[in-house]
Amino acid sequence: MTASIRILGIDPGLRRTGWGLIAASGNRLTFLGSGTVISDNRKPLADRLRQLHDGLQAVVADSAPDEAAVELTFVNKDAGATLKLGQARGIALLVPALNGLDVSEYAPNLVKKTVVGTGHADKDQIRMMVKVLMPRATFNSDDAADALAIAVCHAQHRGARAIARIAEGLT
Amino acid sequence: MTASIRILGIDPGLRRTGWGLIAASGNRLTFLGSGTVISDNRKPLADRLRQLHDGLQAVVADSAPDEAAVELTFVNKDAGATLKLGQARGIALLVPALNGLDVSEYAPNLVKKTVVGTGHADKDQIRMMVKVLMPRATFNSDDAADALAIAVCHAQHRGARAIARIAEGLT
Repeated sequence: MTASIRILGIDPGLRRTGWGLIAASGNRLTFLGSGTVISDNRKPLADRLRQLHDGLQAVVADSAPDEAAVELTFVNKDAGATLKLGQARGIALLVPALNGLDVSEYAPNLVKKTVVGTGHADKDQIRMMVKVLMPRATFNSDDAADALAIAVCHAQHRGARAIARIAEGLT
Repeated sequence: MTASIRILGIDPGLRRTGWGLIAASGNRLTFLGSGTVISDNRKPLADRLRQLHDGLQAVVADSAPDEAAVELTFVNKDAGATLKLGQARGIALLVPALNGLDVSEYAPNLVKKTVVGTGHADKDQIRMMVKVLMPRATFNSDDAADALAIAVCHAQHRGARAIARIAEGLT
């Protein structure tokens, strides 16, 4: 468990997709980078999805992560908003998979519970705790901060997932 | 308007994504091919989206379409189903865009109205009218038949779209 793993967290959205890269070595977390991929809402949908693809592909190519984690969000406002989010989320899951990475998914309340300690934390609490856990972390949007929180969540839970996979293989 | 245009229609779904390729030359429509890309529902979501991507990418590479059209569907059952569809739809829009194609979107009732003459046609009526319009058409699923109907819809409406684009450019 002392090997260092590079984890890419992604918070998908059609307008803004946040990403955050950390290194996890045992319990030690190190901030490596974060950012926001933006799509141009004056363009046709297919072009916007291509912008998200190209931006995330550049992040994966530049940052060489070992594993990826994506937030599993529902939008309950209306079917149109959920469909939009789903389309962006499809790209967020696809790009790491095309690069041969395992992609884990985490529900927002597990991310909040892992990072802040409660499933009902707000954006300010998430930003604050990301800074407490990784004082050198910087982020240019709430989406980038959320993406770092998703990466931290995966760092905490990936060990349990690996054990579960081994156990599945043994049964 | 006598030049022949190859149109790829796509009916996206996470489990089954149908595709249909036609040639349109003026009012003449010719069936070129159709099929269904299937994702393995025992695999993780990111792997399934990659299967859809790889399958559609092979179709685009083999069939060299000039333009693509994708059905714009809502699922009103629940947010989970809509999110799933959205993810598959993201891939269906992305793959043609990555290959430099214009991607048009059509609502299901416009597809039905164009192909069958009424916005409330059922699957059997769509299959039948696809065969009437293109007697040599074959399809291995309702999704493939729907994809051919989407391609036919685009063949009928692309002229009007092109004129609208020119008018936009002139104003």
